[in-house]
Amino acid sequence: MDEQRTELDRLGEFGLIDHLTKKFKPTNASTKLGVGDDAAVISISDTESMLVSTDFLIEGVHFNLMYMPLKHLGYKAVAVNVSDICAMNGKAEQVTVSMAVSSKFPVEALEELYEGIHAACKAYGVDLVGGDTTASYSGLTLSVTAIGRAETAKIAYRSGAKENDILVTSGDLGGAYVGLQVLEREKQVFQANPDIQPDLDGHDYIIQRQLKPEARVDVIKFLKELDVVPTSMIDISDGLASEILHLCKSSKVGCRLYDEKIPIDTQTSMTALEFNLDPATCALNGGEDYELLFTIAQSDYDKIKGNPHMTAIGNITDVSEGAYLVGSSGSVIELRAQGWDHFGN
Amino acid sequence: MDEQRTELDRLGEFGLIDHLTKKFKPTNASTKLGVGDDAAVISISDTESMLVSTDFLIEGVHFNLMYMPLKHLGYKAVAVNVSDICAMNGKAEQVTVSMAVSSKFPVEALEELYEGIHAACKAYGVDLVGGDTTASYSGLTLSVTAIGRAETAKIAYRSGAKENDILVTSGDLGGAYVGLQVLEREKQVFQANPDIQPDLDGHDYIIQRQLKPEARVDVIKFLKELDVVPTSMIDISDGLASEILHLCKSSKVGCRLYDEKIPIDTQTSMTALEFNLDPATCALNGGEDYELLFTIAQSDYDKIKGNPHMTAIGNITDVSEGAYLVGSSGSVIELRAQGWDHFGN
Repeated sequence: MDEQRTELDRLGEFGLIDHLTKKFKPTNASTKLGVGDDAAVISISDTESMLVSTDFLIEGVHFNLMYMPLKHLGYKAVAVNVSDICAMNGKAEQVTVSMAVSSKFPVEALEELYEGIHAACKAYGVDLVGGDTTASYSGLTLSVTAIGRAETAKIAYRSGAKENDILVTSGDLGGAYVGLQVLEREKQVFQANPDIQPDLDGHDYIIQRQLKPEARVDVIKFLKELDVVPTSMIDISDGLASEILHLCKSSKVGCRLYDEKIPIDTQTSMTALEFNLDPATCALNGGEDYELLFTIAQSDYDKIKGNPHMTAIGNITDVSEGAYLVGSSGSVIELRAQGWDHFGN
Repeated sequence: MDEQRTELDRLGEFGLIDHLTKKFKPTNASTKLGVGDDAAVISISDTESMLVSTDFLIEGVHFNLMYMPLKHLGYKAVAVNVSDICAMNGKAEQVTVSMAVSSKFPVEALEELYEGIHAACKAYGVDLVGGDTTASYSGLTLSVTAIGRAETAKIAYRSGAKENDILVTSGDLGGAYVGLQVLEREKQVFQANPDIQPDLDGHDYIIQRQLKPEARVDVIKFLKELDVVPTSMIDISDGLASEILHLCKSSKVGCRLYDEKIPIDTQTSMTALEFNLDPATCALNGGEDYELLFTIAQSDYDKIKGNPHMTAIGNITDVSEGAYLVGSSGSVIELRAQGWDHFGN
């Protein structure tokens, strides 16, 4: 292997997965969809499918225990996987949690972690059904797999967006990223002077967005009640721009995203400005909001119009028109992904 | 968490899992079995179930890249999870593979790893359907989840063994452990003098047992053809003694295991003696053979008698009689688990 050496960051995270898995072809009839969406789809009957999604959470890469309490980490580990099942328009029912842990953690720390896992299982109605527990040489690594169910005909893939569909996001965006900036600042203050108490006043919402994100199981329920089946869907784990581009690429379409339509909470905007950050940029390129980004047919628009949990932010165009961000002044710039790429930076 | 500190090795791996998961109670009707067997059981129809099993493989804990080629590692990662599905009397159909990898690995190394994963997927007829790929600060961590299917009525749990059942193992035991001793010795020779080529002659079988274990999907097929449904089953990942004790504990039974019945390959015995190891001890306490240990009703014994892939090694007794190893001289000693416990040593 020394003859040729291609560094991992040459390909980036998504490029690497594509490269490594390109020669894998499904052979079982039950495998409806493999790599490439928020979850795999496995047929279990004529009308129903199982959804499977898995995520790593690694200390120092995905979380920092200096400001992430273990209970929140446990909650988040389950929530982000439940979110992936939501992103397929399914309902998560089971999770497995595997943990590699160094001996620096006492049993009491893991009890806290599992309290968070338990709270999330309860909140989302999922059962912990397994996992592996082992020693590690460095820190804490979690691997969570969520298993869900969906009516096969109502599964929302990344690839289903059509020209003229409306682009919708749930909730508001950018908060988790700005919350992280606050936590990072207070960490530095604390490191410089451990006697100073962290000043998190007035930032409770965005800190919660970072530390305790919620999977939007409520939005999936609303959509069902409203009788809306999204034509495509993805969860916003990386940043709005990156996720829109995933949808456009998978669906072979273009889009127009309207800057001033992006829902941003006042606390997010105010705090972003404190940090000299543009709030819209935080929404576009920050990550970990775990809202749902989806497209709906124009004929469904009246059903979601005015719903406080959903905001229309753009529309789908022909692929030849590209993917653009339209500014409030009418300026048009090409959408670029600058989301989280663990190999790229 | 500083007030009280209980070290992880106080509880051991299995004790820790029991402790952390004791308050989790399944709430979904589809969850038939959660933590505590080789795989979770999720009901998908009146007659069929999905099986889910997951394992971590961590560099320095579960494998050493000094003697484990990446291609073999990829193969093994899939095989050990398929083995867990076999241990429920099911057929694996899908796997997810997540990988955390440090930048010391070039793309070419990961290509080798995925070649092994691909070979195992082909050999076992399973589809790669997902995973997560991320950076790590140290070495390589793999997390594999296998998903399988079984007729619900024919699932073999750890808990089904009954008094007078016959205890059976597939294949032969101890080889993987003795193979590891050879690899360790050659590693030390190599470290002392890199010019000396490793001397693996005459040890090819046991080295393959260590580096490229196979899931016994063939045994599951044989059992089906012979119309034998094991009353209980587990795969031998830790060591025969430890696995028998798992079966006995889950089934609330005792057992008699006959020392001279334990199937041990000649190469395993000969090499064990080279290392001044007792071959039976290697089978009892070594690990990673990935054979299947199961119990069958006496009435099924004639069906498997003489089958070259299965050996009757003991019988199940009432729980009050305890779990004992009977020596060839008639000596009787209590069975003790000295398998792999990553926290305990």
